[in-house]
Amino acid sequence: MTHETLDAAEAPLPAEAIDAIERAATSAHRAAHPHEALFSARAANIKQSAVRDVFDISLRPGLVSLAGGSPYLQSLPLERLAATAADIIAKDGLTALQYGGGQGTEELRAQICEVMAAEGILDALPQNVVITAGSQSAQDVATKVFCNPGDVVLVEDPTYVGALNTFEAYQVEVATVEMDDDGLVPELLEARIAALQTAGKNIKLLYTIPNFNNPSGITLGAERRQQIVDICRKANIIVLEDNPYGLLRYQGQPLEPLRAANPADVIYLGSFSKIFAPGLRIGWALVPDHLQRRYYLASESVTLCPPAFNQMLVSAYLRDYDWKGQIETYRGIYAERCAAMLAALEKHMPAGTAWTSPEGGFFVWVTLPEGVDTYPLLKQAIDAGVVFIPGAAFTPSDEPSNKLRLAFSAVPPEAIDEGVRRLAGVLRENLAAL
Amino acid sequence: MTHETLDAAEAPLPAEAIDAIERAATSAHRAAHPHEALFSARAANIKQSAVRDVFDISLRPGLVSLAGGSPYLQSLPLERLAATAADIIAKDGLTALQYGGGQGTEELRAQICEVMAAEGILDALPQNVVITAGSQSAQDVATKVFCNPGDVVLVEDPTYVGALNTFEAYQVEVATVEMDDDGLVPELLEARIAALQTAGKNIKLLYTIPNFNNPSGITLGAERRQQIVDICRKANIIVLEDNPYGLLRYQGQPLEPLRAANPADVIYLGSFSKIFAPGLRIGWALVPDHLQRRYYLASESVTLCPPAFNQMLVSAYLRDYDWKGQIETYRGIYAERCAAMLAALEKHMPAGTAWTSPEGGFFVWVTLPEGVDTYPLLKQAIDAGVVFIPGAAFTPSDEPSNKLRLAFSAVPPEAIDEGVRRLAGVLRENLAAL
Repeated sequence: MTHETLDAAEAPLPAEAIDAIERAATSAHRAAHPHEALFSARAANIKQSAVRDVFDISLRPGLVSLAGGSPYLQSLPLERLAATAADIIAKDGLTALQYGGGQGTEELRAQICEVMAAEGILDALPQNVVITAGSQSAQDVATKVFCNPGDVVLVEDPTYVGALNTFEAYQVEVATVEMDDDGLVPELLEARIAALQTAGKNIKLLYTIPNFNNPSGITLGAERRQQIVDICRKANIIVLEDNPYGLLRYQGQPLEPLRAANPADVIYLGSFSKIFAPGLRIGWALVPDHLQRRYYLASESVTLCPPAFNQMLVSAYLRDYDWKGQIETYRGIYAERCAAMLAALEKHMPAGTAWTSPEGGFFVWVTLPEGVDTYPLLKQAIDAGVVFIPGAAFTPSDEPSNKLRLAFSAVPPEAIDEGVRRLAGVLRENLAAL
Repeated sequence: MTHETLDAAEAPLPAEAIDAIERAATSAHRAAHPHEALFSARAANIKQSAVRDVFDISLRPGLVSLAGGSPYLQSLPLERLAATAADIIAKDGLTALQYGGGQGTEELRAQICEVMAAEGILDALPQNVVITAGSQSAQDVATKVFCNPGDVVLVEDPTYVGALNTFEAYQVEVATVEMDDDGLVPELLEARIAALQTAGKNIKLLYTIPNFNNPSGITLGAERRQQIVDICRKANIIVLEDNPYGLLRYQGQPLEPLRAANPADVIYLGSFSKIFAPGLRIGWALVPDHLQRRYYLASESVTLCPPAFNQMLVSAYLRDYDWKGQIETYRGIYAERCAAMLAALEKHMPAGTAWTSPEGGFFVWVTLPEGVDTYPLLKQAIDAGVVFIPGAAFTPSDEPSNKLRLAFSAVPPEAIDEGVRRLAGVLRENLAAL
């Protein structure tokens, strides 16, 4: 559920890309056209994400990108997938290339229930699964169905930049809840809810990435999981559990999703982007029975139906391939890269910096001393040949952030070391100047 | 851009499907859950389309479905497409299965400009094309960017049911403008705008399907096209031109899209669903330069990026296949089916009924005598072995409609004749009872 672009054909020159970042940071200037008066109130809230721009820069030759959380697809059996794709079109092309049902195919929805069973959700029914154009779209639909302008969505601080973009597009007020090393702090969540309710706010959703949070890599502790759901249930807040990385745990014990024991309280978002491949844009929502109809209709009103061919390819993959073995392979790759990053941080980073140690997923979250703003450091880092995402991207606040996100998923171990070395040089220089 | 499902795996029993239609026609009843209080105001506006239910029924064996506007894909070169798909994944799988740019690939956007050139739009630039998850999604984004709740969108009466669903999901006020045999009547459009402006309404968009309108089959006359744009420009209303069928003209002279001579005034929506295949869900918007950025960002916030593989397959198809020849083939098929339908109507329909004669596209629009409501006739028609879509689906009004839509695109000529014969029997019975 990260939103990385690696479209080489579109890579602008670095100077242009840097300009683009600056444009995004300030408001856009444009000659007035009478149509300007026609934009919806929400359109003003839809901003260019700084993250997006950085991905184009990431293509600069010689540059190490620790920005993009793209999965590493080299281990996929491409030749075999090619044959499967051909088979689907040759034998079943009239279905694969035709309109399909708005909720997704029955076959894939049943298989998705098996994927979720591997996570610990054992009671999911295909009829409560809605297949969407990537998990981002599932999140968009959830916001559409529940949030009026001015309603509140609670999020972890930090949280996924794409989720923030979606919420802001619906003019939702995003309220953050602090995390510690075990994720969301229940007492702080409770206090935040109480304060918002006292202020007369309508809180609709708690959006959480409990496993290997993007961007922090932090995992919500086992003992807190039920507590969080109970707090939300009591306050009549729906939990929107976003779990694209859950199966990519390479350390520690698997934890049950919040949805597992709480079928009526949680909308669970899943994705094939990290456990198979993002380019097919197939995600899903598992929706409580009493919310399924509204959710499904809203999804259908946006895209009519998810692409039939893509669903059939995922179905064939889950049916005929060792998809769990592929996840093992992914786990091995990411475990190695995570270890390389942690070792590089240990080796290169200056005193006064700290970072998280994820048990899975794609990201490490680095904290610099108070008072440092990582946003202006990005330009220096690019000049030094490394890219990261400044922490400010992952919070609704406009305040400067002394955090930054490093992604190791798409980068070989030796390049990770070199990238961190370059970054550390930039940081050392700036920390010395403090 | 119709929203037909032919997912055989999901076909309910006819009795259940008929129940579903009735459920859709009345409001849904459900045991109250505290979450009911959480729905957004817009969620209440997102309704089950009667059309959707009918498609499931259409699968009943022996039944002739004149309901679904699915394209007829049997003439596609499936074996060759299978090989192309395999080639893309085998040789370029790391791109095809990875995240891509939010606007779509540069290659496909350039090719889309060539497709639009075949329609008469000669000045389109790839940078102003935004590729979307089907044209439905492009329309959703346009509404998102321009419409606040309570804003007005003008539409032809009748218009595409999927567009109505989208507008209603944004709590837009949909105002209809009457058509005659030459489409939208400029004088009536002007009067409607004046009346709405006098009432203090904010009119944002005119949504129009100028070629072979869905559902009516009516085409906007050549001499009216510039008039319509001029009227909208004067009133600062953006024209949202939806043209999925434009290249499927099998009679009469091609007409320039409204966009052709009016690059700053029209957002043009195109689709590969009718000229290639709908199952890939690839559509696009050609957006005026001054609106591109906002439109693109809103699109990205919904789905991150369109599926890379699907875009690459469409690109290969446009690059390596005789796509114009395939359109010729489609034209031939639909011309024959349209002729079969018109002949069947001539042969079977009772006195007092009238219908349109489309020059392209998929649909014929039938008008029964005043006072007849086609909605309750649907059940009788299903019992007689034929399905159509009642006219009420294609207008925002809750009034009964004496119209119905017949689609000939997916049905062989002999079945068209039999379907119309069955329908005529039902109508004759009901007209006699008047």
